[in-house]
Amino acid sequence: MSPGVLFHFPFDPGSRAARLALGEARIEWTEVLVRPWEADCPLHDLNPSGMPPVLQVEGPPPLTLCEVAAVLGWIEDQQTTPLLIPSDAVERAEVRRLTAWFDRRFTDEVNAVLLHERMEKPLLRLGPPEARMLREGRDALKHHLAVFDALLSGRDWLAGRRLSQADVVAAAHLSILDYFGEIPWASWPALKTWYMKIKSRPCFRPLLADRFQGIAPAACYADLDF
Amino acid sequence: MSPGVLFHFPFDPGSRAARLALGEARIEWTEVLVRPWEADCPLHDLNPSGMPPVLQVEGPPPLTLCEVAAVLGWIEDQQTTPLLIPSDAVERAEVRRLTAWFDRRFTDEVNAVLLHERMEKPLLRLGPPEARMLREGRDALKHHLAVFDALLSGRDWLAGRRLSQADVVAAAHLSILDYFGEIPWASWPALKTWYMKIKSRPCFRPLLADRFQGIAPAACYADLDF
Repeated sequence: MSPGVLFHFPFDPGSRAARLALGEARIEWTEVLVRPWEADCPLHDLNPSGMPPVLQVEGPPPLTLCEVAAVLGWIEDQQTTPLLIPSDAVERAEVRRLTAWFDRRFTDEVNAVLLHERMEKPLLRLGPPEARMLREGRDALKHHLAVFDALLSGRDWLAGRRLSQADVVAAAHLSILDYFGEIPWASWPALKTWYMKIKSRPCFRPLLADRFQGIAPAACYADLDF
Repeated sequence: MSPGVLFHFPFDPGSRAARLALGEARIEWTEVLVRPWEADCPLHDLNPSGMPPVLQVEGPPPLTLCEVAAVLGWIEDQQTTPLLIPSDAVERAEVRRLTAWFDRRFTDEVNAVLLHERMEKPLLRLGPPEARMLREGRDALKHHLAVFDALLSGRDWLAGRRLSQADVVAAAHLSILDYFGEIPWASWPALKTWYMKIKSRPCFRPLLADRFQGIAPAACYADLDF
């Protein structure tokens, strides 16, 4: 397997999904931490969107994999047996449906509100969070958590019987909100059981060591028995 | 190949991409036109997001493919040789990068503004378009068209040497804006050549017959030699 360099921002959901999938695939990689909002960020020359994650692979052929979909797709392409995209047609459809759900609905309804208030505002010095927006983001999050908890009441993993890209993407998003103490796990027992399982995997360890400038993680963020 | 039923809204980019890909794959399907904003839309029972496209396949196994990613993924899974996802690793990465570009950036920066003003407002009776928003959407569109035109100056198709999902997704988005007369093709010669090529394919014919309630298409919308 070719060694790669991952350009990532530790609190970007796509970057976290890339790290989890690389870990699951046991692909060796080195990392460059980036701050995409800064003028001299190296991503501006690598990815036309200017955003993380980007994975550079030595090859052959040498590749610059831009956006999480390209990174996750390439990782699966390297496998001889399915790793994160199950071979079962029903589960494949669920992986794709749920990945789109996080890419659009969860990003628009939860992250754009809650991560903007809790993460982007301190990063970009945009002032304190607004109580009304926090309330709105938390209400939206509650709706999504109920959907996931219901799914996981009848399944081992989000898309079915096997760990998949859907779990990796979901855990990437939820772990960031968990850092900021936004997930009331006790209210969602099936979701909590799932998160305990995925959080215990070796691929998760580096994420639990991430620290956000000036904000300590929620008490149980790195606790496997929360 | 199993016969399928596609639930779609003709002016939804994902629905158009599904129709183009089904056409390219020569998969037989019947259609149900849906209006997802109406309370009794059948999608509300089929797709948890309530949105088109949804493709139901008889199977075995019977499948309900929700969201365009699941439909396009399933179509590719049916092929014995690559159809819309090239086997070349560089082109695969480009397909995935560009699909993500349309899913997020183009949707947020162009469609959310320009299609909201030109399409959603008449559909939902939200009043006339605002000049300021039209200007903002057209400025954003211009930036995107410049990016695509530059890419296509050095390539036969958007992701490289072969027609791919990137072309299908791009043509789905751009053809809707073209219906509303929003694409100044003459300013972007490489993009225009590409659009002439894809518009001439048999899969495109049904899209050129689509009509939006109360708004006639731009003069050259269905013209192959525009």
